[in-house]
Amino acid sequence: MSKYVFGVDIGGTTVKLGFFDVEGNLIDKWEIPTRKENNGSNILPDVAESILKKMEDKNVSKEDVAGVGVGVPGPVDNEGIIHKAANLGWGEFSVKDTLEEIIHMPVMAGNDANVAALGEMWRGGAKGYDDVVMVTLGTGVGGGIIVKGKVINGSTGAAGEIGHIHIEDNETECCGCGNKGCLEQYGSATGITRLAKKILSEDNTPSSLRGKDISAKSVFDAVKEGDEVAIRIAGKFGEYLGKGLAAIACVVNPEVICIGGGVSKAGEVLFGYIRPSYQKYVFHGSRDAKFVLATLGNDAGIYGSAKLVLDK
Amino acid sequence: MSKYVFGVDIGGTTVKLGFFDVEGNLIDKWEIPTRKENNGSNILPDVAESILKKMEDKNVSKEDVAGVGVGVPGPVDNEGIIHKAANLGWGEFSVKDTLEEIIHMPVMAGNDANVAALGEMWRGGAKGYDDVVMVTLGTGVGGGIIVKGKVINGSTGAAGEIGHIHIEDNETECCGCGNKGCLEQYGSATGITRLAKKILSEDNTPSSLRGKDISAKSVFDAVKEGDEVAIRIAGKFGEYLGKGLAAIACVVNPEVICIGGGVSKAGEVLFGYIRPSYQKYVFHGSRDAKFVLATLGNDAGIYGSAKLVLDK
Repeated sequence: MSKYVFGVDIGGTTVKLGFFDVEGNLIDKWEIPTRKENNGSNILPDVAESILKKMEDKNVSKEDVAGVGVGVPGPVDNEGIIHKAANLGWGEFSVKDTLEEIIHMPVMAGNDANVAALGEMWRGGAKGYDDVVMVTLGTGVGGGIIVKGKVINGSTGAAGEIGHIHIEDNETECCGCGNKGCLEQYGSATGITRLAKKILSEDNTPSSLRGKDISAKSVFDAVKEGDEVAIRIAGKFGEYLGKGLAAIACVVNPEVICIGGGVSKAGEVLFGYIRPSYQKYVFHGSRDAKFVLATLGNDAGIYGSAKLVLDK
Repeated sequence: MSKYVFGVDIGGTTVKLGFFDVEGNLIDKWEIPTRKENNGSNILPDVAESILKKMEDKNVSKEDVAGVGVGVPGPVDNEGIIHKAANLGWGEFSVKDTLEEIIHMPVMAGNDANVAALGEMWRGGAKGYDDVVMVTLGTGVGGGIIVKGKVINGSTGAAGEIGHIHIEDNETECCGCGNKGCLEQYGSATGITRLAKKILSEDNTPSSLRGKDISAKSVFDAVKEGDEVAIRIAGKFGEYLGKGLAAIACVVNPEVICIGGGVSKAGEVLFGYIRPSYQKYVFHGSRDAKFVLATLGNDAGIYGSAKLVLDK
């Protein structure tokens, strides 16, 4: 019977690692740099070395470890094959097989946003739920879809790409993905800044936001102070996000929608802008989905990747 | 080892029944009327009686039968509980438990659109695929989402309600669900008729559709004859449907999109209108999803409900 499990979250600058017991208690966490040179070929060997060293320090044998879960910033299919992670210099290969050959323990791999969703379901804001839509509002809009306790990867690892649901026909600028009018262009931190600049330029209504550096944080701080323009910006943001979440709910009918990422630090004030739009646009059978905030922050990925191993 | 399985598809006027071997070969099919009086309380006893009689006729014992699958026109959750089927006069109860108590064989229940999807995956147009989005373009727009070979029911049985994805902000009429701008208002047979009337009234371009009874069939017949207005109608229909399917694909990243229902009788000509819009709006990771036509017609439900039993 295994006692421990490792969760790894590979990012563009650092790799986060977590050492857990099988109940999901985080015993230790640490980081190593992501060495992207040589097409990222050092990354998995570095991960293996760091984990093996930790096991030595903690006096833990391989028999005691269920395995190593890895979240990576790119599409990962049901077989653990990544289809390109541009951030890391990686092309298409099996993360699972490659790391298993180095570390000689079972490995599972998943997309970083998808495993973060699993982490929040296991030990975070969506704990206790089985059917979860996780939305990460950061630089972009990421997502993870959980059905009956399992993450959906999709046929080519591109499930949960909810930031790229088309939501606005009248957009003239391109999203990072090349399309126009993606949810990410309005619902992310950068999207909120764009919306703010647009709405501020429409008229001269006084606002504490004028002349300031605008960010998702400054907008929601101003909302809390009752700033009229900030409230208009939040309204537009909520309208778009609610509409996108409603479309997702028509597809998978979640129990709970869990909102994380930097923007979610604004707190429950977000729900007041997102939920009315969600309820307006969603099919009645999904109208009562609960809204919760993510609670694991940057640790969601290590929790979720550990859980991937325990679920396999 | 069971040799046979029954699939049942309960509709508002008739109940379709199918007798299959466990490989999915249809041995016999027949229909009985749906007796909706007394809140539909005769429906399941009628189904049981009809199946038991068929078993007697065919000299099949209960030991030879894997069970009975039932598709019902309403939301069915993961436990086989239906949450209201207004068409049948049914409230909330367990279809599975109720029929098992009468028939003394294992029963599985699912939403009719969801089981139709499973049928098409098992023995129809989506055969050989594991990740399927099934769209039924009939009086309404129904859907079934299959992930790794299993139908998603959702937390309250309302998954796959893709006809109610919001797709048009400028709609003034209500959808049957009470919302405005649902995909069903443009993608269904009635939706195409609405679009046709609207587009015909916009100008006086000559069209073979003028002065005729307009239906999805007459529109696509005119498209095949090169009718300019019909082509415009088909374009608008395809734009909406492609956009809705793109949103779905951002969520679940299917291998294949299977199009069924009365409208699909128009054939592959539909793809020429739907696919360009789909590819324009979808995230690049899902751009290569295949489009196929459903092949089982009205039998998809009996196939799929039989498969529900074999998958349990």
